[in-house]
Amino acid sequence: MVSALAGHEIIEASRDGDHKVDLRDAASIAALYFEVGQVDAVACAAGVTPFKPFRDLTLDDFRSGLDDKLVGQIELVRQGIDHVADGGSFTLISGILVTEPIETGAVASTVNGAVEAFVRAAATGLPRGQRINAVSPNAFTETWDGYADYFPGFVPVPAADAGRAYAKSVGGVQTGQVYRVGY
Amino acid sequence: MVSALAGHEIIEASRDGDHKVDLRDAASIAALYFEVGQVDAVACAAGVTPFKPFRDLTLDDFRSGLDDKLVGQIELVRQGIDHVADGGSFTLISGILVTEPIETGAVASTVNGAVEAFVRAAATGLPRGQRINAVSPNAFTETWDGYADYFPGFVPVPAADAGRAYAKSVGGVQTGQVYRVGY
Repeated sequence: MVSALAGHEIIEASRDGDHKVDLRDAASIAALYFEVGQVDAVACAAGVTPFKPFRDLTLDDFRSGLDDKLVGQIELVRQGIDHVADGGSFTLISGILVTEPIETGAVASTVNGAVEAFVRAAATGLPRGQRINAVSPNAFTETWDGYADYFPGFVPVPAADAGRAYAKSVGGVQTGQVYRVGY
Repeated sequence: MVSALAGHEIIEASRDGDHKVDLRDAASIAALYFEVGQVDAVACAAGVTPFKPFRDLTLDDFRSGLDDKLVGQIELVRQGIDHVADGGSFTLISGILVTEPIETGAVASTVNGAVEAFVRAAATGLPRGQRINAVSPNAFTETWDGYADYFPGFVPVPAADAGRAYAKSVGGVQTGQVYRVGY
């Protein structure tokens, strides 16, 4: 996804990278922003949700997915406002399960629906010309071997297509949008 | 809303009613189902979310809205499956803010997006012919006096219109639907 953002200096952060962050831990998000200082854009492609057949999902499974991919991304925005430049942007990740459920994906569907509605609402409340969009991709070609059985009949897309949607969000002018990739 | 469900015996439950339940407390949902036994349908019109300007919303505000109107309704379904008859139904509540944000409504928007996506996913996983839908109403005429300033240009609808959407969900045949009321 990085090549689509050529011309920008990219600061990568992840659970295990040089810059460490865990979406489940609001303090680690604060520490990340303290470390990197000011940025033009925040692009998130992270977020974990449990996958189990509907009847096997527990209350803790729902809470875990909400804490990670939803509340974690909300915190990236909430805490990030003061660290993102005037006219800068946030790009969050949703996913195809918001409209096309699979047998094991009810937590992901729920979380993705929340992320997309959050983006529409946050776009109206961000200060200083900041924008926010979501990228909502289909399953990826690169990881299709491990997931094909869970996505019957889905047509996976190259992750680079999602990268272009991030580039559109970061480099474009729209806000409050959901960029659907491959569906 | 009750009149639209004439012919059914209605068992009402609320924080302060004869049958007490608090959506934030999973144990109180279990106690409610233990009390009332088997039912043909569960219709929920409850759920509280904090309302504040976007920049004033805290992490706890988001958590509070998610715990109440989202996780509470998910628990009504998750725990209710064994208490609802074959071919019975669940009807949850969402709301217009999912697609039309207002200045103080980002938590409600987020929660409503999650509820609607949950309903689409849960519809594919419920057993024994059980169905699930959401009712997503505009603001109500009956409470408009207190809310008009927060909903500029919105055209409120009588709560009875939402009642008819509940009746459609309970008495109808569809599942995984969002019945929008007045928008």
